[in-house]
Amino acid sequence: MARRLAIVGGDAAGMSAASTAKRRDPDLEVVAFERGPYTSYSACGIPYYVGGLFDDSDRLISRSPDEHRANGIVLHARTEVVGIDLAARTLAVRDHQTGDEHGEDFDELVLATGAEAVPPPIPGADASEPVRTVDAAERFRAALRRGGEHHHVVVIGGGYIGIEMAEALVQRDIPTTLVEALPQLMSTLDADMAAHVQDAAEGIGVRVLVGTAVEEVLLDDEGAPRAVRVDGETIDADHVVMATGVKPAVGLAKDAGIELGASGAVAVDDHQRCPAHDGVYAAGDCAESWHRLLRKPVNIQLGTHANKQGRIAGANATGGDLAFPGVIGTAVSRICRYEVARTGLSEREAAAAGIEVVAATVKDRTRAGYFPGVGPIWVKLLCEPGTGRLLGGQVVGVEGAAKRIDVLATCVWTGLTVAEIELLDLGYAPPYSGVYDPVLVAARAAVKALR
Amino acid sequence: MARRLAIVGGDAAGMSAASTAKRRDPDLEVVAFERGPYTSYSACGIPYYVGGLFDDSDRLISRSPDEHRANGIVLHARTEVVGIDLAARTLAVRDHQTGDEHGEDFDELVLATGAEAVPPPIPGADASEPVRTVDAAERFRAALRRGGEHHHVVVIGGGYIGIEMAEALVQRDIPTTLVEALPQLMSTLDADMAAHVQDAAEGIGVRVLVGTAVEEVLLDDEGAPRAVRVDGETIDADHVVMATGVKPAVGLAKDAGIELGASGAVAVDDHQRCPAHDGVYAAGDCAESWHRLLRKPVNIQLGTHANKQGRIAGANATGGDLAFPGVIGTAVSRICRYEVARTGLSEREAAAAGIEVVAATVKDRTRAGYFPGVGPIWVKLLCEPGTGRLLGGQVVGVEGAAKRIDVLATCVWTGLTVAEIELLDLGYAPPYSGVYDPVLVAARAAVKALR
Repeated sequence: MARRLAIVGGDAAGMSAASTAKRRDPDLEVVAFERGPYTSYSACGIPYYVGGLFDDSDRLISRSPDEHRANGIVLHARTEVVGIDLAARTLAVRDHQTGDEHGEDFDELVLATGAEAVPPPIPGADASEPVRTVDAAERFRAALRRGGEHHHVVVIGGGYIGIEMAEALVQRDIPTTLVEALPQLMSTLDADMAAHVQDAAEGIGVRVLVGTAVEEVLLDDEGAPRAVRVDGETIDADHVVMATGVKPAVGLAKDAGIELGASGAVAVDDHQRCPAHDGVYAAGDCAESWHRLLRKPVNIQLGTHANKQGRIAGANATGGDLAFPGVIGTAVSRICRYEVARTGLSEREAAAAGIEVVAATVKDRTRAGYFPGVGPIWVKLLCEPGTGRLLGGQVVGVEGAAKRIDVLATCVWTGLTVAEIELLDLGYAPPYSGVYDPVLVAARAAVKALR
Repeated sequence: MARRLAIVGGDAAGMSAASTAKRRDPDLEVVAFERGPYTSYSACGIPYYVGGLFDDSDRLISRSPDEHRANGIVLHARTEVVGIDLAARTLAVRDHQTGDEHGEDFDELVLATGAEAVPPPIPGADASEPVRTVDAAERFRAALRRGGEHHHVVVIGGGYIGIEMAEALVQRDIPTTLVEALPQLMSTLDADMAAHVQDAAEGIGVRVLVGTAVEEVLLDDEGAPRAVRVDGETIDADHVVMATGVKPAVGLAKDAGIELGASGAVAVDDHQRCPAHDGVYAAGDCAESWHRLLRKPVNIQLGTHANKQGRIAGANATGGDLAFPGVIGTAVSRICRYEVARTGLSEREAAAAGIEVVAATVKDRTRAGYFPGVGPIWVKLLCEPGTGRLLGGQVVGVEGAAKRIDVLATCVWTGLTVAEIELLDLGYAPPYSGVYDPVLVAARAAVKALR
């Protein structure tokens, strides 16, 4: 009888694993379980859908259940795995349409259960909308359409998703307040760089409250939000979008006796294997990733890692020998008029890890001064005292800024020093920079700061 | 008495050297000679000025003679160095305004004489316009304005400057024919990638003739161009723009007994020193640069190298100890709707050097499919058989494409393999790519091609 690979979770990591395994071993039976109706969707695209950049939510789906089925994968949507028996090699599975529960056996298993929103301990928070899935986004858009013109929305959480949602809402002419408990937006950036992001958000009309704790979401008689009470103020709100923390969805793994790491996510080796459990893999938002600078496992929830790790798990589950080399914390987003990016360690992260750094920040231009679309770009570099080895970078600026982070990421990855970076042979032409690329200008400033 | 540093040539390399030296040693007398009226100008910006992107040619000048003077540099514009006596440590200098010639002494010398156009051996070619300097660009723009509406321009030479000039001209509604003797445009790219550039040029209305030799520039009674005769055709032309080869301007160095390398440019060590001549430096377009992949000196004329080498020469002439680490052939431009970039070796260059390569090319998108401005991007990678070490990359695509080359340049520089590149932690967000950046997609294709 054919061997059977079971996949728990039908988004990026799970379906990358399923597709890779099926492609490598067409005789393998690959069966995937997804509790929602959709597979392989782009959570990153949801704010753009909410903002009305496109109207067809199918555009968020990179591969539908039927497309996966056409590739020979047995795909059960609206079907949730509710228990794992590792000794018996069986799953307990619930069909959300019929309510039926039944068993499914497996030889190898890939856990790709993703992450889940953590409602903050605020009275009424349960009535807010996390808008993390395609169906939640569809419901939210429909609600915005229904409500006429008197909306006011409060977004709780000033990370990139919260800011993107706030931007999407003001683009629909919906007055929006963004509330963040920390003293700055985008805590993945240092405060000096995050200040530019706040400028941009306020510039398009988002009301931003930082250092502001939400005390309560006030509900109407039907249990829907009507206002949000923050430090000393009550803000009307027909909708409350919750964009606070998420955590790895590990309940199922934990109940099955699969080990979690210190980050709270499923512990894996560099082959995405759960070390104590032969033939069991984990990948994506539910799993740990090795951080190459911190030299320890972390849990970073990004589609780019999920896709790679899923592919590696799928390959290794079918006799492959691929290693995931780890992460360095690269992330990009576009927020209002600015592109925003970071890699490696921030000053705050370095301090928390007891790593000393030298920092340098420059303000430059994205193009030659006479070129249409020219605008500011800030580049901040952090390097090791003494050696000057690059440990981190942050970039904020207009169009053309963000993907500079990939150069810095490659430098962090390969251990280049700022003195080496300063003389790298990077491209120059007037549409892209002054004669010294901002990356080189920043490296030069860091060389000076090291002295 | 103060020591005296003389600089021959007042553009990027020369004025970088002058500025660096003066900043490091304020007591040093720094005197620079420039035969033209302008210093520190952006030759790269000339096509944009000709095209009318801006009207004030001052915007091409990053630092004027007076600005240099304000920094304490003695700057003689319209003043040409016509002889160097290394033994006597003197220069023969001609003032182009008065015609006077006199001597100037020096302790250290930086040669930054740049490059000069090489008119091809075509009858009448002398009457064409190279448009390589600010004053030539001003004259050309004035001539275009004077001539009314019946212009037809022939641009000879299909490198990036020729194509940019042709683009600038059709943007002014001037019918333009671009003639290239080689069978493709942009010979710095491989033919498959250059084909996209030709598509783009033709798409905006440039008539492109490749594989077409110019036989003669036909002149009117006043010695001005009236037509260009190519293989089997005579093309009317009120102006002929010559954008064929340039060569390092080394006559002065050669006459002084300074050694040239095999490339024809001034031979220098990694400190920009002319090895046999104590206290004599060369930098920029007139000098050789070490090619890190070809393991030999080459002559590549780009502002980015000129600036860096000038700075290094200026530092080392004032007691510094900086080394230029070499080049890998990175270049970017924007041509019609496409951004175009290359780094490392092309297939043609590798073949010419006897270096075997494995090539892989992918076509991808610059953004998520639903994002405004999404368009095609082609990425071609060349790597070493066996190891998979990246040896070169070429990128053509819409906005956002070009600076991907900097990631590839950093990978070439640090010797990463395509298998390592495939798993790099690069940024992902919908405005910038699909979930796998085109660089990663191309690396994956190269990993497959290696098998």
